[in-house]
Amino acid sequence: MIAHILSTGDEVLLGDIVDTNSAFLCRALKEMGIEVQKIIAVGDDVDAIASIIGDISLQADICLVTGGLGPTRDDLTGLACSKASGNRLELNIDALESMRSYFKKRGFQLTRDNEKQALLPSSSNMLINRNGTAPGFYIKINQCLFFFMPGVPSEMKMMFEKEIKKVLVNKFNLFDDILIERLTVFGLPESKVGALLKGFETKFFGIRLGFRADFPVIEVKIILSGSFKEKDKARADIAKAKQWVVLQLENKVVSEQGLTIAQEVGGLLTKQGKTLAIAESCTGGLISNMVTDVAGSSNYFLFSGITYSNDAKINILNVRKETIIEYGAVHEQTALEMAQGARHKAHADFAISTTGIAGPGGGTKEKPVGMVCIGIAGSEFSMARTYRFSFDDRVKNKKIFAMMALEILRRHLVLMAKTF
Amino acid sequence: MIAHILSTGDEVLLGDIVDTNSAFLCRALKEMGIEVQKIIAVGDDVDAIASIIGDISLQADICLVTGGLGPTRDDLTGLACSKASGNRLELNIDALESMRSYFKKRGFQLTRDNEKQALLPSSSNMLINRNGTAPGFYIKINQCLFFFMPGVPSEMKMMFEKEIKKVLVNKFNLFDDILIERLTVFGLPESKVGALLKGFETKFFGIRLGFRADFPVIEVKIILSGSFKEKDKARADIAKAKQWVVLQLENKVVSEQGLTIAQEVGGLLTKQGKTLAIAESCTGGLISNMVTDVAGSSNYFLFSGITYSNDAKINILNVRKETIIEYGAVHEQTALEMAQGARHKAHADFAISTTGIAGPGGGTKEKPVGMVCIGIAGSEFSMARTYRFSFDDRVKNKKIFAMMALEILRRHLVLMAKTF
Repeated sequence: MIAHILSTGDEVLLGDIVDTNSAFLCRALKEMGIEVQKIIAVGDDVDAIASIIGDISLQADICLVTGGLGPTRDDLTGLACSKASGNRLELNIDALESMRSYFKKRGFQLTRDNEKQALLPSSSNMLINRNGTAPGFYIKINQCLFFFMPGVPSEMKMMFEKEIKKVLVNKFNLFDDILIERLTVFGLPESKVGALLKGFETKFFGIRLGFRADFPVIEVKIILSGSFKEKDKARADIAKAKQWVVLQLENKVVSEQGLTIAQEVGGLLTKQGKTLAIAESCTGGLISNMVTDVAGSSNYFLFSGITYSNDAKINILNVRKETIIEYGAVHEQTALEMAQGARHKAHADFAISTTGIAGPGGGTKEKPVGMVCIGIAGSEFSMARTYRFSFDDRVKNKKIFAMMALEILRRHLVLMAKTF
Repeated sequence: MIAHILSTGDEVLLGDIVDTNSAFLCRALKEMGIEVQKIIAVGDDVDAIASIIGDISLQADICLVTGGLGPTRDDLTGLACSKASGNRLELNIDALESMRSYFKKRGFQLTRDNEKQALLPSSSNMLINRNGTAPGFYIKINQCLFFFMPGVPSEMKMMFEKEIKKVLVNKFNLFDDILIERLTVFGLPESKVGALLKGFETKFFGIRLGFRADFPVIEVKIILSGSFKEKDKARADIAKAKQWVVLQLENKVVSEQGLTIAQEVGGLLTKQGKTLAIAESCTGGLISNMVTDVAGSSNYFLFSGITYSNDAKINILNVRKETIIEYGAVHEQTALEMAQGARHKAHADFAISTTGIAGPGGGTKEKPVGMVCIGIAGSEFSMARTYRFSFDDRVKNKKIFAMMALEILRRHLVLMAKTF
């Protein structure tokens, strides 16, 4: 089944708003086993909208349209639909009724402007709007079933969930399906990931790979879509494919569920009943922010000391003054003492630390921008290592420093889980 | 001039990501006086992409294409372009060179897979990618000039700004004269901002407004483009318009240069030669991360204590145990003592603090999700206030809590600047 989405409204084309409606509808249709083939966005122009509706009516089986059902002058979708379909607009009694009751509930009176919203193309079916005034409708044009919804996200979502879903299920008895497995990969450029997974398509016929780079991690998606009779076989197929992918990417797979490193770390700490402290210099709070973005992190995260100044490193994390004098702030010994200090201060089981040069300033020949020392401390051990990255962008450096520190902790926790 | 945008990649059609690239490009073109007529998104399907390129080549004058230039197998845009244009792919020496130098800078070797990215349609012109490996290119097909860019936002934006803009200006002798004023607005919903600025276009003919909501702030752009003879008059015109906008939005304008609140705070601290400490609970490091995203923040930012546990609040920030027992962790008194403690610990001039309920869990009737206590401490004063926001999203709450705390500090610093 071919599905298209048509998003109308100047605000999208002017870049004033991002079209989140289409993303929602793509996800929602995907869950029903329908993959969207094309998304089109046009402005508030009757003829443009009408001609696109005409094109789509010959290409797609279903089309979800958002926007342009409101009471104002630039709400022209209904008119465009009647132009494209040759069904003139007429007062839809159901629509008028549902609007009346909506207003009544809120103690308002219908205005003439509102009544305009009850003008729907003849032979179209009204769709109730539970979160607003403008009713939606659906209508068959040529080979395609069009669903017209308001552009206000809350109204659109409610209408799709409560009205359109059941129409779709009834009209098309859908047994089409899609299975998606997600992996989070860290420490490889996208090109390398592609190279390592070469030969996948021939090895696993009918299963597709998708990649999404979100610096510095890459999400690898394994997608199996089609209409499979035996779900179990499909699940087994995609599981085998996933296993192979994980094998190819080795230890660069940080999550086999598509989670963030911070979420994985959180899960491991929770499972092991351990607590975490953090000492950050160059990452400036980013690690802590990533850790605390995870709901429930208060169960294992105790304290983080963002010590930008040397005094703070010394006074709050108990880094030895001699260490700073002898080695400087950016050094493995300093990172080590920062981690140990944070761990003791917070009485935590583990601590990680970062000190480095995020740039753009502050780099030297021996300690260039992109260099970071990462420390980790536990009850029986502590260590620190130096890493060099080659970005000249401060925010990029902070991000990869922070992820590297979390990844070092994650690997250690995985090791612990295996050894005990 | 008719402009279209073509966004390629399964991730958009699967609803995995929202297409922010198109929104950026719409805004960027609008600033150059070009309004986008249509946005189309399709998946990683060579034939689908090729046929759409064919259609656009007969409808539009320019088309900006994003995505599908990477080295992986689902990067098919170059191939689709060669199919649509009938120009076969050949190794582009400039492209290969620019990739070589990009890799060399980072001490990597080119892989065969990378070289694939240097295969561009014959008679196309290479566009340098300053933030990644995949070069872009532009090529005329029928009546339309196509620009092909990577899908990674940072790479796409840089390529548009540094490469494509000048090509557009030359090829279509566009207004190279563009004056843009940016304001950062915090504390108003977008609809309210729009309402407050109603009547602008009639008041300031020829000057356009642009809005960009980046929760929880809104960037208001005042755009004057044209080939103006007297630059001074143009500057005076836009200055007057800006003055009016600032007046309408009153104290909700946090930056008249379009800076972030953290950048404004950094500038004020630097100018006043003051230092900053931070104590965060519910914001979990986000404030510190925002502050340290600003280059040079090490000149005024000393220390931040992310004290998630009560022990940490007591042991590290010297919050009185009785305070926690009597009032609990989320209370103005606790926020107050956190700010004072952080300030003393770091010997800083100022400190701000947050303690609240980010959610999703942890809310009660008296202390619901979305409630935050913000403290500020200086040499002669300290205070704390409670704020309530109505988001049930953890990350959103962290963000608005953090911005609110920074805004309170900013207002105080502005006051100081005025009084002394």
